[in-house]
Parts: sequence; structure tokens; C-alpha cells
Amino acid sequence: MIHVVFLGFGNLNHHLFIALSSAKNVVIKQVFNRSSVDSSSSLLKNVPCTQDISKLMDADVYIIGIPDDAIAPFSESLPIQNKLIVHTSGGVNMSELSNNSRRGVFYPLQTFSKQREVNFKNIPICIEAENVRDLELLRKLGECISENVVGIISEKRLKLHLAAVFVNNFVNHLYAIGSDILNKENLPFDLLKPLISETALKIETLSPKAAQTGPARRKDQKTIDKHLKLLENSDNKEFYELFTKALKNV
Amino acid sequence: MIHVVFLGFGNLNHHLFIALSSAKNVVIKQVFNRSSVDSSSSLLKNVPCTQDISKLMDADVYIIGIPDDAIAPFSESLPIQNKLIVHTSGGVNMSELSNNSRRGVFYPLQTFSKQREVNFKNIPICIEAENVRDLELLRKLGECISENVVGIISEKRLKLHLAAVFVNNFVNHLYAIGSDILNKENLPFDLLKPLISETALKIETLSPKAAQTGPARRKDQKTIDKHLKLLENSDNKEFYELFTKALKNV
Repeated sequence: MIHVVFLGFGNLNHHLFIALSSAKNVVIKQVFNRSSVDSSSSLLKNVPCTQDISKLMDADVYIIGIPDDAIAPFSESLPIQNKLIVHTSGGVNMSELSNNSRRGVFYPLQTFSKQREVNFKNIPICIEAENVRDLELLRKLGECISENVVGIISEKRLKLHLAAVFVNNFVNHLYAIGSDILNKENLPFDLLKPLISETALKIETLSPKAAQTGPARRKDQKTIDKHLKLLENSDNKEFYELFTKALKNV
Repeated sequence: MIHVVFLGFGNLNHHLFIALSSAKNVVIKQVFNRSSVDSSSSLLKNVPCTQDISKLMDADVYIIGIPDDAIAPFSESLPIQNKLIVHTSGGVNMSELSNNSRRGVFYPLQTFSKQREVNFKNIPICIEAENVRDLELLRKLGECISENVVGIISEKRLKLHLAAVFVNNFVNHLYAIGSDILNKENLPFDLLKPLISETALKIETLSPKAAQTGPARRKDQKTIDKHLKLLENSDNKEFYELFTKALKNV
């Protein structure tokens, strides 16, 4: 059995908790959170919760799920030594964790919102550790919930995280722009959903370059000019111009 | 029965042909294409094909599927009069069709690639016509293949098309950037696919604004600076800066 303590109970640890609590071979020993978590919820009814960092229980792995900036000072403040402490961030180097402990990373490459359930089975879990035994433990822990556990060092993980920002945060902002354009016309955003879905599905079988279509790709300047005219005085014009320039050169 | 002639057999008409050929109440009378189409393919074996524009058969609706720029002159050159001629483009005003004929638009809002089958059932088909009877005919034709037929005038359709460019062409370019970043690290693009899929699924239940996460949204300048450092000397830096500026202001 792998004994786990959660340090922080934000978005990501909340989802990890749900996934790991139904995994065989995992015992969630405790949840620490600076502010009180709603321990009356059925989710936490069988797990001890604490706001007192001095009362951490013994475990095989401590999973930090707090804002990136807070990871280094928080890990330094932990009153435990020589334990395996991992963070769950894409953008934080493993070396930012305090060296009072054995250090590791357990980064599920996915976007998490409290309102949405996620299935971890296909989510890549990127693991890293200072020593081989800890890496093996993290691999076992990852494999309790995902079929896609990969060892990736911090430098590569940051690049993966950068790519994730492009295909998630920035893509989602383009959805927001599309939604705004339709809202102004009193057209429902639903009209775009089959297109959004097909765009994401297409790259399961085609490379993004092979999947590309549209006026910029076919250098259809007449349509581009019509669009630019609609975007006069809009903040979105700069996006349109930048993408169009890039796509014409592909 | 609705009798249809296809004018042009590019990507979109190819897919429309497949969908309409299995629809009840539709007879595909003929396919015209300037260059020869492979009429030996099983797809076309029961449909007369011609490269001679003077030999068009009689039909209820003629569906133009050719590049946007060519639509106006081509419709002017058609040797038929007072027939219902529709184009299938998002960005071309209905009035660009020759007024020798009754004009209309039959625009399926989707991205089409020859290599990928599409299911028309959920695809919005945006229709427009000069007179009510033709609009009714186009609605009937659309409903043979889709549950989502909507009447939209040219001016609104152009805005819908603009929004589609943002959520499809530009989104796909972000996928390409993500893919390039991973390629350089010898990491498989597959690592990003669950994230891409979840990003598209999320907005089925959350608005894009509610779904937004990431360093720019939470104003995590430390992570942003790490990413910008990785993008030094990259064409993609401009994209990163533009999105980050926009997301910080959301």
C-alpha cells in the first residue's frame, strides 16, 4: 500500500484526491490545508483533515498542490525530513523544493476545474525524482490512476508546460473570442461547438499541419480583407493579423 | 424528391455528396467538375458526371462548391436561368451570385478534409435565399442530413465565419505550435492530446471564460517569465505575449 498525504486542497489536489481515493493500493492518510476544508462533505468524511502543519502524519509520499510561487517557501517550512515530497506543477523545477526532503514531481498534464469531473486514465502523469526508488514509487502511484505515466526531467517538463499553455489556455481564449463575436450578433455559441469538437478530433488522425484549412492557409486575401474590415477597432484584430501572417507562411 | 446537381467537386461538395447520396428524398442528378473526377470510384458510379457546362441537367437546386473567388464569375457563366443556385461558402455574400438565377446559400459550418469522414447530423447548416419558397426547399434539403438547419443572412454569416476562423484555423495553428515545441524535445505530440480533447470538451458545459486557467489568467509572472525565456528568438514569442496580455486583462 502507498500512503499519501495531501498538502493543499486546491483544484488539482481535489481531483487527484478523488482519483487516488478510489485506487487500489493507495491509502490517503491525511489532508492538510491552510484554510479549513469542508470536512463534512462526503468526499472527506473518512480522511483526517488538519490546518496544523505540525500535525502531519507519516506517509510514503506528500503531494503539494498549491500555487507555483508558494511551493518553494512552503516546502522549506515543512516540519518533516527525509520524506518524499512532490509538487504537481508543470512550471516549477524539482530543485525549487527544499532539500530537507527527498524531492520529486507528480505532474498530471491536464486542465482542471472544480466543476468538471476528469477521468485520469488517459492523462499523462509526468514524474521525476532524485533517486531511482522514489521514481519507482511515483510510477506505481501514477499507474494506480493512469495508463500514461512518463518520466520527464524538469527542463523538458517546462517545455511541455509551455506547449500545454498554447494548446489549452490560448486555445480557450480563442474560444472566448469566438463566443464574443457570436454574442454580439445574438447568435448562440452552440453553433460553433461541432466545429470546435471536430477541430480537436481531427488532430487525433491528422497532423495539425495537414489538418489546416481556411482563408489564410489558401491565401484568400479577399476573405481576409472582409474579416479585417469586421475587426476594425477590435482588440481581436491583432490576433487575426498575427495568425494570418503565420499561416500564410506555413 | 429534391433533385440536386453539384457544381464543383472539391472538399466540401465531396462531403456533401456523400451525405446527400444516402439521404432519403434526395436524388443527385449530376456532378459537374471542370477537371475530370474519378468517375470509376464507387462513390460516383451511379451518378452522371460532366466537364461540359453546357450539358447541365435539370434540377431543383444547383450547389456550387468552388473557391470563394471563383463563385461570382462562375455563377455568371452558368447557362441556366431562373433556377435555384446556392453557394456553400461562409465568407461570400449571397448577392455575389449572378442574378440570372434565384440565389441562395447552403453553408455547412464545419472543417472538411478529404481524409476525414464527417457526420452531418450535428453540423449547423446555415441557409439563406431570396424568396421564401426557396428558403423552405433549402431547409428541407438541409434537414435531410442535419438536425441543425438555421436561417442566417449574409452579413451575420460573415461574422459567424470570422468566429469559425478563430476557433478552427487559429486553434489548429496553436496545435501546430504545441506540436513543434514537443518535436524539438523529441516528445510525442500524443502527450498533448488528452489536454486538447478536454479543452474542447470543457466548453460544452462551461463558458470559455469560466473554463480559463493557466499562468496568464492567475497573473503568475514568474512562470510567464520562464516561458518567455524559452521563447527567445522564436516566432512564437509574439503569440505568447499577445495572449498573455489579453488573458491578464480578462
